[in-house]
Amino acid sequence: MQQFAVIGLGRFGTAMAKTLTTMGHEVLAVDKDEDRVQEIRDFVTHAVEADVLDEAVLRELGLTNFDKVIVAIGADVQASILVTVMLKEMGVKKVIAKAQNELHGKVLARVGADQVVYPERDMAVRVAQNLVSCNVLDHIELSRDYSILEIIAPDDLVGKTLAQSNIRNKYKVNIMAIKRGEEIIVAPGGQTMIMNNDILVVIGDNKSLKKLRMEG
Amino acid sequence: MQQFAVIGLGRFGTAMAKTLTTMGHEVLAVDKDEDRVQEIRDFVTHAVEADVLDEAVLRELGLTNFDKVIVAIGADVQASILVTVMLKEMGVKKVIAKAQNELHGKVLARVGADQVVYPERDMAVRVAQNLVSCNVLDHIELSRDYSILEIIAPDDLVGKTLAQSNIRNKYKVNIMAIKRGEEIIVAPGGQTMIMNNDILVVIGDNKSLKKLRMEG
Ligand SMILES: Nc1ncnc2c1ncn2[C@@H]1O[C@H](COP(=O)(O)OP(=O)(O)OP(=O)(O)O)[C@@H](O)[C@H]1O
Ligand SMILES: Nc1ncnc2c1ncn2[C@@H]1O[C@H](COP(=O)(O)OP(=O)(O)OP(=O)(O)O)[C@@H](O)[C@H]1O
Ligand SMILES: [Ca+2]
Ligand SMILES: [Ca+2]
Ligand SMILES: [Ca+2]
Ligand SMILES: [Ca+2]
Repeated sequence: MQQFAVIGLGRFGTAMAKTLTTMGHEVLAVDKDEDRVQEIRDFVTHAVEADVLDEAVLRELGLTNFDKVIVAIGADVQASILVTVMLKEMGVKKVIAKAQNELHGKVLARVGADQVVYPERDMAVRVAQNLVSCNVLDHIELSRDYSILEIIAPDDLVGKTLAQSNIRNKYKVNIMAIKRGEEIIVAPGGQTMIMNNDILVVIGDNKSLKKLRMEG
Repeated sequence: MQQFAVIGLGRFGTAMAKTLTTMGHEVLAVDKDEDRVQEIRDFVTHAVEADVLDEAVLRELGLTNFDKVIVAIGADVQASILVTVMLKEMGVKKVIAKAQNELHGKVLARVGADQVVYPERDMAVRVAQNLVSCNVLDHIELSRDYSILEIIAPDDLVGKTLAQSNIRNKYKVNIMAIKRGEEIIVAPGGQTMIMNNDILVVIGDNKSLKKLRMEG
């Protein structure tokens, strides 16, 4: 179990605080807005109304004992930078800060943030990729050229065994797993049949994977 | 190439519009705020200043010919719902709408949104999982019980071959690929040595994977 504090209870901060609590960690949630503090009270370990720009108030939170502090203040860029500076000067071990844009992110890193996150931008990239390829459910970028995709089996592969599908030679990708309902077939063999609605976990270079992605 | 329109150029909408353009699609970006329209002008196909709550203005955009329209209006929940209704009544094929919270999302789906996205919430879950497991770089949830993780090789495996590591029996997970710098080793054999700084792509049930995740 770790001790986390989340400062700023917008949508991102609220979801962070709730998720970490659900995962079994101790979470202190902080906002200067009383309503937001009230709303989250029942879903975290502690919820405190505090304006963290007041250094005395910030010190009183005792954050130096926490494992990680997440600064999820959004629109007020100046506040997020000042709080990050104060937290690092107080000796907080790890500060994770949410950035509005690249410039904000650079400043946060410069003043000592240990990690900078861009939730809106990163999620936009994920959603964009998903919109463009209608059968891709999720993906991991392994490198600039290689990815793992979770795709709905394309129609022309359904009813064939892996050997018959010739997917390795034709598409130059490897099927690492097949998800069939709640069953997961890891490292399927050449005799495994691809069925309708199967979800294939494939690895390959992006150019080869492109042929498997259906444009939608 | 597909035709997209993005309505609402906050951080999420802006990043969506830019990413889709970069991917080679035609993108119309719309906001009622002149500055936001100016800022994105050079990064999308067309940028238009328009208040989409005015139905005549909305019709003039000609969105029925587009493949997908993304409604990325945030704080003004009522506006996002009204625009979604109008777009579907006009006959727009696919409307993807950004929701502030579960209730907003339910209403959006009810009034016809084809897909509802929760960028802040979804990214918060990803970042929370990443903060708790310091060696996990990315992940795909295959089912409630199975996942793929991209992890930094734990110290006790470095210097061992896959056969020596006994990872399949000890941890009950499969190594599907190893990322070593820019090289990707797909389906590594038993003689493959795990090196310092290797990134392992592993598949297994969540309970087994937990042993490989380092708490940090
Ligand atoms: N000085 C401060 N002390 C405490 N809380 C603060 C301070 N300044 C801002 N906040 C809080 O930070 C929270 C998040 O800010 P804001 O809503 O601007 O972010 P956002 O990036 O739009 O959020 P999201 O996109 O995650 O919903 C707000 O609830 C606000 O009250
Ligand atoms: N009726 C409207 N017509 C056109 N644009 C609108 C309308 N209403 C709101 N917008 C625009 O939507 C954009 C996004 O809204 P807002 O900043 O509230 O969302 P947000 O969820 O906080 O954004 P993000 O978190 O992605 O930065 C704003 O630039 C705003 O001008
Ligand atoms: Ca009060
Ligand atoms: Ca936001
Ligand atoms: Ca004007
Ligand atoms: Ca906002």
